[in-house]
Amino acid sequence: MEFYGAPMPAPNPRRVRIFAAEKGITLPEIPLDLRERDHKSPDHMKRNSLGQVPVLELDDGTTITETISICRYLDALHPEPPMFGRTPVEIGVIDMWIRRIEIQLAEPTRMFWRHAHPATAALVEQHVVFGESNRITLARAMDWFDCEIADGRTFIAGERYTMCDIAALTMIDFATLIGLDPVGNRTSVAAWHERASARPSAAA
Amino acid sequence: MEFYGAPMPAPNPRRVRIFAAEKGITLPEIPLDLRERDHKSPDHMKRNSLGQVPVLELDDGTTITETISICRYLDALHPEPPMFGRTPVEIGVIDMWIRRIEIQLAEPTRMFWRHAHPATAALVEQHVVFGESNRITLARAMDWFDCEIADGRTFIAGERYTMCDIAALTMIDFATLIGLDPVGNRTSVAAWHERASARPSAAA
Repeated sequence: MEFYGAPMPAPNPRRVRIFAAEKGITLPEIPLDLRERDHKSPDHMKRNSLGQVPVLELDDGTTITETISICRYLDALHPEPPMFGRTPVEIGVIDMWIRRIEIQLAEPTRMFWRHAHPATAALVEQHVVFGESNRITLARAMDWFDCEIADGRTFIAGERYTMCDIAALTMIDFATLIGLDPVGNRTSVAAWHERASARPSAAA
Repeated sequence: MEFYGAPMPAPNPRRVRIFAAEKGITLPEIPLDLRERDHKSPDHMKRNSLGQVPVLELDDGTTITETISICRYLDALHPEPPMFGRTPVEIGVIDMWIRRIEIQLAEPTRMFWRHAHPATAALVEQHVVFGESNRITLARAMDWFDCEIADGRTFIAGERYTMCDIAALTMIDFATLIGLDPVGNRTSVAAWHERASARPSAAA
């Protein structure tokens, strides 16, 4: 099994590293240099026709892309501790939170990065006014998220740290890095972010 | 258990109906009238603070939103036939395809709908030039998808019909309805779409 990733600040490989650290799985990583466009090389395009990282290549040549999917595969192989839930309700609720984080919070972050950030200007056709509008979209979504987790819960789906916490942590840290302000003065988000960041896995 | 949905052409409740039909699950649906803004009513906002359908409300009051998450919950209760895979590799690959369909294909469709379609103009601040640019984004993504499934496979993740086929069918039908042309002259997509549409569940 080979894991093709990229070092910080790439948020997606970091998700898999945090997941592996929480599981106690050793996942030797082959880092690609994204500034050198290694992820668009013919060799890597054979692994992932979208030219993205991370990719998990299995011994039979099967490749799994998309971070959450790689983690689901590893979770099925190494069920403890369960990061996607154990009972049907836990499975449904954790998945709901992964999707809410990705659609409500990560999408405006990605749209800002893609359409308004100078670092991507040479790579894609930007729509800057739209890109900038995602600051407001994200701020509203973070306000909503802050209310949702204000009921005293320790982690996003309850008392245990699960995949939706990893999705939120990596998204918030990346948004902060590119100049957005996802935490701001949102007290429940800030307290949760401190708890998640204090786990040894956050350094992955 | 109560299922709050909306009739066609709402694509998300349709996903759950197709899923239930494939599983042989009877899921009595309480339809909300989206044009009457039933989904933004105080009663419904208590079920889903995002004001969206569908919502599955369990007997203890727990609510699960997000279509794929509702289907995962039902899949855990009714494992046969497996719609999210059985082995770790199947689980990883089907999830990868769900995510590729949602990120590569459904996102430009949603951005076109939200930012360029007259039906949503009164509801959100539109960025029409950006919205229209998603026609090209979607066309390129559909070309990529057409190549990916051109190897003779029957369904997207292999020989069995799974959740990623439901995600693609509902997305393509909705894109077509709102004036995009996701099938076009893409022969592998067209053949797959015909197979998926011929299943009795497609009428759900």
